[in-house]
Amino acid sequence: PTSKLPDVGTTIFTVMSTLANEHKAINLSQGFPDFNCPEPLMNLVTKYMHEGFNQYAPMAGLPQLRQKISLKTEKVYGYRPDPDTEVTVTSGATEALNAAISAVVKPGDEVMVLEPCYDSYVPVIRLCGGSPVFVPLSLPDFSVDWDQVKNRLSSRTRLIIINTPHNPTGAVMSRQDMNTLANLLNGTDILVLSDEVYEHMVFDGQEHFSVLQHPQLRERSFVVSSFGKTYHTTGWKVGYAVAPPQLSKELRKMHQFITFSTATPFQLAIADFMEEEAHYLELPNFYQAKRDFFLQQLQQTRFEFMPSAGTYFQLVKYNGITDEHDLDFAKRLTTETGVAAIPISAFYHDKTDNKYLRFCFAKSEETLRAAGEMLAKV
Amino acid sequence: PTSKLPDVGTTIFTVMSTLANEHKAINLSQGFPDFNCPEPLMNLVTKYMHEGFNQYAPMAGLPQLRQKISLKTEKVYGYRPDPDTEVTVTSGATEALNAAISAVVKPGDEVMVLEPCYDSYVPVIRLCGGSPVFVPLSLPDFSVDWDQVKNRLSSRTRLIIINTPHNPTGAVMSRQDMNTLANLLNGTDILVLSDEVYEHMVFDGQEHFSVLQHPQLRERSFVVSSFGKTYHTTGWKVGYAVAPPQLSKELRKMHQFITFSTATPFQLAIADFMEEEAHYLELPNFYQAKRDFFLQQLQQTRFEFMPSAGTYFQLVKYNGITDEHDLDFAKRLTTETGVAAIPISAFYHDKTDNKYLRFCFAKSEETLRAAGEMLAKV
Ligand SMILES: CSCCC(=O)C(=O)O
Ligand SMILES: CSCCC(=O)C(=O)O
Repeated sequence: PTSKLPDVGTTIFTVMSTLANEHKAINLSQGFPDFNCPEPLMNLVTKYMHEGFNQYAPMAGLPQLRQKISLKTEKVYGYRPDPDTEVTVTSGATEALNAAISAVVKPGDEVMVLEPCYDSYVPVIRLCGGSPVFVPLSLPDFSVDWDQVKNRLSSRTRLIIINTPHNPTGAVMSRQDMNTLANLLNGTDILVLSDEVYEHMVFDGQEHFSVLQHPQLRERSFVVSSFGKTYHTTGWKVGYAVAPPQLSKELRKMHQFITFSTATPFQLAIADFMEEEAHYLELPNFYQAKRDFFLQQLQQTRFEFMPSAGTYFQLVKYNGITDEHDLDFAKRLTTETGVAAIPISAFYHDKTDNKYLRFCFAKSEETLRAAGEMLAKV
Repeated sequence: PTSKLPDVGTTIFTVMSTLANEHKAINLSQGFPDFNCPEPLMNLVTKYMHEGFNQYAPMAGLPQLRQKISLKTEKVYGYRPDPDTEVTVTSGATEALNAAISAVVKPGDEVMVLEPCYDSYVPVIRLCGGSPVFVPLSLPDFSVDWDQVKNRLSSRTRLIIINTPHNPTGAVMSRQDMNTLANLLNGTDILVLSDEVYEHMVFDGQEHFSVLQHPQLRERSFVVSSFGKTYHTTGWKVGYAVAPPQLSKELRKMHQFITFSTATPFQLAIADFMEEEAHYLELPNFYQAKRDFFLQQLQQTRFEFMPSAGTYFQLVKYNGITDEHDLDFAKRLTTETGVAAIPISAFYHDKTDNKYLRFCFAKSEETLRAAGEMLAKV
């Protein structure tokens, strides 16, 4: 019998990180920091392990962590989800995305996906028997063409997936975008899955506008976030989903048969560490400084760019340099120049090549400086 | 729109653990130890966190952990799976089970399931569009009726799920069982999913017989195990699957979109700690002593039992005591007597009630003694 996902190869993140390691290239491809998470956070993990908290957490997440998520959500977005019925802790945002899609997409359903997009959405939709309906974001700023979204909605549309701040482009949706989406969906029973894992990385005085701030949207939405991104712990695999009780109930049915529960000592440590509000309040400045430092390095190169508005990724355009396909160029950049990046075609179902690469700037200044020097030689 | 899993409520493990907590009952329901994992294992986690290993692990698992799994498998079962192509680390055995089923079951496929069985198998089969075909294990020893298995195989059978040592009954499959299964499947392309998470808990001088020991079986099998069970770390959510390259390839496609990867510091710590072979070599004696201690306590009660052959569960029969449905009796035992157990009907699709309860004896002697005293009052 044939594969259920015949077109899926190894993810681009694995491909590029592996190639980077093999060639000892500076790895600005896969999105993770090259610095450590906060010391007090690790110390809390150690403390809770030694206190014996090494057995199953409750299926939906530890109550104290769900409570903290609820309070923080109120503080940041002015909406307080019920920790018992609206917050679910998952084994990373990837699991939350999988659980949300699996919870609601049935064979024959259409799911609207704005491209370029994170590479897990579409395979999960297909595994559920759903059909992705692709709408490209509009160049050069990767904004949403809401007229096109409207035109592609159908009676079979079950879900629309949005992502802000946007991976890989760094684009950020405005309040106006959210209003437009809300108006489009008004009177339909189309659901929204909002991937907001980079919620604390928005720059230049702009603010992240969450679906949770929009009453008409949040009542039909799953909102996914990631402690991995916020606390520099991508390797701990702790994320969460917020959704109205009826949607959370279905999401939890999936979660309980996907992983059942998520690492207990990490949940406890994060719950305590969330008291340190300064950590996430300073994150925009922290990452903006990194972006700016990286852009400064890029000045000496032939790459063109618009400053990233959010996420810890910077898109660069390279069509003044070569007309290679972006995957070929990304590989050559890794093996010959010594800097690994992600080709944006990997985020399009048909591998559309707009001659963009994505660099991750969640790195030390030393790393970013060294990368800049190498890229200057291109 | 309706639920994709309309019949699924909260898992029996959550129901009983929650009830136990509410009533301050001794919790012998959900399967986890009430003692801590080894100190050196925790110290390794701390060490690796502080060394900065808090970012994404490779998708298939850290190479050093896969290597250790491979070597240990050879030592214990005489077969050495290729760590690169045959071993995948997952976020708990639950994820491995989900990924294995999702990798191969398509709409219209039949999957044979021996009941009673772990409660995640059937919902995952259904979510894939598959049809479970239920074959009950034979009372009183819950052995497999291979004739019935044979009779229920069809041209649509894609997969058969086995579980040894068996949760919830403690039954253990013999070499003869495995030979029979191999003969039944000979000449078909039916696959096997073998849930062996209790592989190191087999008692009374018997040995666990793994599908990996059987060349004709392992070439068509996913074998799932759990570090949570073996290292007393159910709350770390690290498990793995061994399967031939072609099956592992498909399983990894699922894994990469389910959780993508598994907690890095735990993987590193476990890889090192696997050197301590004494830990798993002593596990049969360690748990047999607990079983025997628990059975001694049960002598003073009106419950009937056959000593568990494997797992850390003991089944008891209560039909001499009451003819309540097992779920009702389990709840009353929790709220009135103060000891929580799992009703076996929860492991049957039609809630078959054979008047059995399951107790977890992965507990301190103190806990088991206290439970025995309370159960003596029934
Ligand atoms: C799960 S690996 C990918 C990490 C990430 O978010 C990215 O690089 O886009
Ligand atoms: C994932 S909670 C259930 C734990 C377990 O294996 C059991 O109690 O049977």
